[in-house]
Amino acid sequence: MLTLPEVLAASQRIAPHIHRTPVLTSRGLDALLGKRLFFKAEHLQKTGSFKARGALNAALELQNPKGLIAVSSGNHAQGVAYAAGILRVPALVVMPSDASPTKKAAARAYGAEVYDQGVTVENREAVAEKLAEETGYTLIHPFDDLRVMAGQGTLALELLEQAPTLEAVLVAVGGGGLISGVATVVKALRPEVEVIGVEPETANDAQQSLQAGRRVSLPQAPKTVADAVRTLAVGERTFPVMQRHVDRILTVPDEVTLQAQRLMMERLKQVVEPTAGLALGPVLMGYPLPQRVAVVVCGGNWMP
Amino acid sequence: MLTLPEVLAASQRIAPHIHRTPVLTSRGLDALLGKRLFFKAEHLQKTGSFKARGALNAALELQNPKGLIAVSSGNHAQGVAYAAGILRVPALVVMPSDASPTKKAAARAYGAEVYDQGVTVENREAVAEKLAEETGYTLIHPFDDLRVMAGQGTLALELLEQAPTLEAVLVAVGGGGLISGVATVVKALRPEVEVIGVEPETANDAQQSLQAGRRVSLPQAPKTVADAVRTLAVGERTFPVMQRHVDRILTVPDEVTLQAQRLMMERLKQVVEPTAGLALGPVLMGYPLPQRVAVVVCGGNWMP
Repeated sequence: MLTLPEVLAASQRIAPHIHRTPVLTSRGLDALLGKRLFFKAEHLQKTGSFKARGALNAALELQNPKGLIAVSSGNHAQGVAYAAGILRVPALVVMPSDASPTKKAAARAYGAEVYDQGVTVENREAVAEKLAEETGYTLIHPFDDLRVMAGQGTLALELLEQAPTLEAVLVAVGGGGLISGVATVVKALRPEVEVIGVEPETANDAQQSLQAGRRVSLPQAPKTVADAVRTLAVGERTFPVMQRHVDRILTVPDEVTLQAQRLMMERLKQVVEPTAGLALGPVLMGYPLPQRVAVVVCGGNWMP
Repeated sequence: MLTLPEVLAASQRIAPHIHRTPVLTSRGLDALLGKRLFFKAEHLQKTGSFKARGALNAALELQNPKGLIAVSSGNHAQGVAYAAGILRVPALVVMPSDASPTKKAAARAYGAEVYDQGVTVENREAVAEKLAEETGYTLIHPFDDLRVMAGQGTLALELLEQAPTLEAVLVAVGGGGLISGVATVVKALRPEVEVIGVEPETANDAQQSLQAGRRVSLPQAPKTVADAVRTLAVGERTFPVMQRHVDRILTVPDEVTLQAQRLMMERLKQVVEPTAGLALGPVLMGYPLPQRVAVVVCGGNWMP
């Protein structure tokens, strides 16, 4: 089980290489949506997403790694490539062949080699394990690793300082690495603050899992515009943290996710990914929520 | 002639209603372009552009106005609408009928009435003067007004504090309201800092005017993606300030403007207008420039 001290240690460890991202607000957007909203701007993080935090924390805990390998739809790949650059070792990232060209190019721009031949969402972990054996590089899991979860949680330490009056946090859920880190911090320091996961309607495996009390897998790669949360199931290590600390999971249809993304671009003037729109979705849906709500803007690696 | 004390007074006057916008930086972009760049983020200003500064300063100097009228391709309209809202008087904005729907909608969202029937870039000032007579409202010129110029100059007071090491400032030039305000401040406080105007290749009336020593008008509305600088000539009041304080004017073709806009969206994760890309254009063009360059990001009222 992830604990607060591990997140505090991660925060110290990664601080020299990571931005303390700002919290953005807009009175116009607040008036439009009838809430006080705090946007934790991880699209302004190194590599353009929060994934740099977890990847770097995991990498800095390794003893003389020969190289790093990542399995990722994109942002974790850039995080691992960034971490490898800091450690001055090679990075190899395994991406589905249909991952966005922007994300592939970005991983390469951070100095990684991209491996995508014949890779699908379903087979990518097996491919990566084989590559790890062949190369002797260390595989850094995108979410099911306590060091990664601790790294992602560091953004919540900042958020609680930056928006001390908040009553709830909305977090997009894929494998659960981000929300397990965030929930660990929030429930240790401010247990009255609600931690709310958000999933696409077509990819509600975390919601089903929490309801069933066991990890439920999607039968196949889900179709959703929120490309950062297309994982088939939450992790073995993230699930118990979610069971203990996450208050509820809400679902959002893709059309609302895109509407929310557009609204963030129009009103905040920020370039954000569809998955960042997903986290704002519940506010647009009219789900009952407290008045002062933080939205984790998970990334900005997207172009019109 | 505009003077520093007028800009200082404007700064005091408008401060309660205006954001002190941040200066954004990106090490990645600096490395890519070989400069140290400071982006003065006026797309994050109230109304999404610097125009709120000048419009508000002019409006706050009026004695009990009955209402305000603006002639504008868009951003000044929103600025005047915003100012009218603060004064609690009506706003009427005259826009070319082919102005972007986003800008019309935004002016209406700020409570203005939009007048665009039969309005063109060429006849809009005459239309506005007629409307002013009919309604008794006060016309606020988009640039050729010392109070407006003083308001725009307030951003330079902030910039010099926020980026004290800068050696040059790049400013898009339309009618010259922004650059005359900025140049007045910079040359009063830091005369060694270069003030460089930027125009589209197809709309280089300011460059021609400074070379000729008299105001040169474009024969017709120029075709350029930089829609905020489609004015036919610089102003009677802005021109002498530009003659005294502007070091040089550079021109940029539209394709470079769009490339620069895209780069700012990709690397800074900010939604900016094409005209903001125009100001960065000279860096991409390889024009000889000092090492530490500020770019005025004039606005963000644009959507993909």
